[in-house]
Amino acid sequence: MSKTAIRRLDARNPGFLAELDALLAFESEADERIDNAVTEILRGVRTTGDAALIEYTRRFDHLDVSDMAALELPKHELQAALASLSSAQRDALVIAAERVRAYHQRQKAESWEYVEADGSRLGQKVTPLDRVGLYVPGGRASYPSSVLMNAIPAKVAGVGELIMVVPTPRGEKNPLVLAAAEITGVDRVFTIGGAQAVAALAYGTQTIPQVDKIVGPGNAFVAEAKRRVFGTVGIDMVAGPSEVLIISDGSGHADWVAMDLFAQAEHDELAQSILLCTDPAFIDAVHEAIDRLLPTMPRLETIAKSLANRGALIHVDSLERACAIANRIAPEHLELAMEKAEDWIDHIRHAGAIFVGHWAVEALGDYCAGPNHVLPTMRSARFSSPLGVYDFQKRTSIVHISEAGAQHLGKIASVLAHGEGLQAHARSAEMRLKV
Amino acid sequence: MSKTAIRRLDARNPGFLAELDALLAFESEADERIDNAVTEILRGVRTTGDAALIEYTRRFDHLDVSDMAALELPKHELQAALASLSSAQRDALVIAAERVRAYHQRQKAESWEYVEADGSRLGQKVTPLDRVGLYVPGGRASYPSSVLMNAIPAKVAGVGELIMVVPTPRGEKNPLVLAAAEITGVDRVFTIGGAQAVAALAYGTQTIPQVDKIVGPGNAFVAEAKRRVFGTVGIDMVAGPSEVLIISDGSGHADWVAMDLFAQAEHDELAQSILLCTDPAFIDAVHEAIDRLLPTMPRLETIAKSLANRGALIHVDSLERACAIANRIAPEHLELAMEKAEDWIDHIRHAGAIFVGHWAVEALGDYCAGPNHVLPTMRSARFSSPLGVYDFQKRTSIVHISEAGAQHLGKIASVLAHGEGLQAHARSAEMRLKV
Repeated sequence: MSKTAIRRLDARNPGFLAELDALLAFESEADERIDNAVTEILRGVRTTGDAALIEYTRRFDHLDVSDMAALELPKHELQAALASLSSAQRDALVIAAERVRAYHQRQKAESWEYVEADGSRLGQKVTPLDRVGLYVPGGRASYPSSVLMNAIPAKVAGVGELIMVVPTPRGEKNPLVLAAAEITGVDRVFTIGGAQAVAALAYGTQTIPQVDKIVGPGNAFVAEAKRRVFGTVGIDMVAGPSEVLIISDGSGHADWVAMDLFAQAEHDELAQSILLCTDPAFIDAVHEAIDRLLPTMPRLETIAKSLANRGALIHVDSLERACAIANRIAPEHLELAMEKAEDWIDHIRHAGAIFVGHWAVEALGDYCAGPNHVLPTMRSARFSSPLGVYDFQKRTSIVHISEAGAQHLGKIASVLAHGEGLQAHARSAEMRLKV
Repeated sequence: MSKTAIRRLDARNPGFLAELDALLAFESEADERIDNAVTEILRGVRTTGDAALIEYTRRFDHLDVSDMAALELPKHELQAALASLSSAQRDALVIAAERVRAYHQRQKAESWEYVEADGSRLGQKVTPLDRVGLYVPGGRASYPSSVLMNAIPAKVAGVGELIMVVPTPRGEKNPLVLAAAEITGVDRVFTIGGAQAVAALAYGTQTIPQVDKIVGPGNAFVAEAKRRVFGTVGIDMVAGPSEVLIISDGSGHADWVAMDLFAQAEHDELAQSILLCTDPAFIDAVHEAIDRLLPTMPRLETIAKSLANRGALIHVDSLERACAIANRIAPEHLELAMEKAEDWIDHIRHAGAIFVGHWAVEALGDYCAGPNHVLPTMRSARFSSPLGVYDFQKRTSIVHISEAGAQHLGKIASVLAHGEGLQAHARSAEMRLKV
């Protein structure tokens, strides 16, 4: 059997860090065609609203409607979709939703305040966003789990109205997606997509209400549209290709590791699957398992391309070194596939999610363990976090100053304001001083 | 005395909301000259590092150094700057820093975890960012309070290394800024600025270490550079013009309200100062106070332009209506200048900071009350928050699944993964099932 193409690297080589950086390098190409199309679509929806939406939906989704009412899915369609599922699918969705909800309940921030000796009160008021838009891709990449992972934290936060948009090319609907919307309590669903759906949510149209934030994955047009409307509305992260890093001490099953690498690689050809292992014999066993298992996979072409383009099996001489490399990679998903995996959690400073131990396979986290599957990619775990309830709450500072507080603080503010040459700042504080 | 130019609006007019939206409308112009300059500077620093930094610093800051060592301020210079201040200034800075620190301590998030009946453990690990860059403008807009407000939450979060950059055009240094860096424990200070400083922090050079996030205000070049490097590093918000909205019930002093409007307007000509008041006589009194006090202000030209261009005195028929308008504006700063102001806090859904009561003048919050003065502008309080400790912490999901947990969850994940056509996901879960 010929060996499956995947990089074999050794972290002891002097050139290793340069090889690693080259492996991780990924820059999405600026694409003028996409830029121009998005510019036109945003302007179209902003100026003519519903009329533009109907026209773009006809052009891009091959869906011909005469009015906007035909682009909203009534509640009973969602209920019917849920009822249409097999009991296994319905139960799986419901249990997954319950577990994700239970986990996210722990993330809810509460308002706080403290009172000073002079009666001043300082704090932060935490409130949910009023209205959020959830983008769900249509077609092949239409994932009900994505509905759960985006809708549930918004609902736990207490978002007033959650509006889902999902394109239905040629009218084709995904019952699992609609069922997930029903289970999570999405308030309204419109069958629009692409940059035009993002524009409608950001600016509002005669029919689509303007939202305060847009979340959810999408293609390059959707990503570019989100980038453009940021500021007018909030957006979640613009995600890069999905990544898994597995650290192995050579314990456990090579087949499990191979399949976990496949699970990442099957997303698309740019997905990244990397193994760091202290045991060369185990690396060989994983490579052998890859060779043996790959032909059995329905998505084998995608997996093979992803492994060849962006995968790697890397020998490291210690688990300490593996953790140091993991911190440099700051992976979206990190599996600690080793004995006493819990002892190594504190060695990891940067990762979107850490899957601890041989039983904690990433797929459980993708669907039903409870934590969110929307995670920082492309080294952004160095500075950002999984999607959570905190992304659907915002804070307002409360500055309640007593008369006595104004005397004490006013003198300090006056000195500092004069030091900055801001005399009106100083005088507004001084006016409150009793002479 | 001629009336100072400022819009007088009435919220009862049928066209009021359109007038309000026009008043709020602000779009920063795309500027090709800035775009091109930033493109060149980012590329220069990325490819030639220190050499480019030295060249740009010579060109833009008229500061001629032969090596990078001359662009780092040694610790003793910061200490000397602190020692050089008057005791009033030193005390004011120290007390302000203590109060800001005390407030931000309450924002620190902690890791959490829970254990399920089957022994699985789920949670989130909260960790500080490794290294943060703090941009501080040079020249006239060089504000020590900005150092306090950005550095303290980073330090409270536990950021490993805090690197400040501040341009010193022609070698001119601001002792208050350097003293603030010393008080807040900034780790290193480089006298570089502009897009080149942002590039150095984002990519790293031979001398400047790469950071994980860049915060702090700057001019249009700095803002554009931050926008471009976002993704490579995290950034804070890109701020718009500063805004205050004052809601008045006609109680209190017209002079105080006028000076509070000035304090916002003196920032720059685009700053926005708006009064909403239920009492027409009080609005007249405020307008009269504006006329009387304006000639006494050192920054009267800026204030007059800002009030004329973007200010407004608005009559509303009720405080309920005033709060509804405030929620539409979602102001950066909101002063509730009224009796029983605390009763109205819950009517406000969107604001960066609420200053409660006549004594709570915004200037106290700008310097020393404790809450952060970096606040969401341009209606983004609808979806974002004051700068805080949470901006310097990130979260990692912990997914520790027991063998029993893998049995239960694996079946659910398998059903959902097959439903999404992701067979490797399904099989990675199924492999852990005991038959």
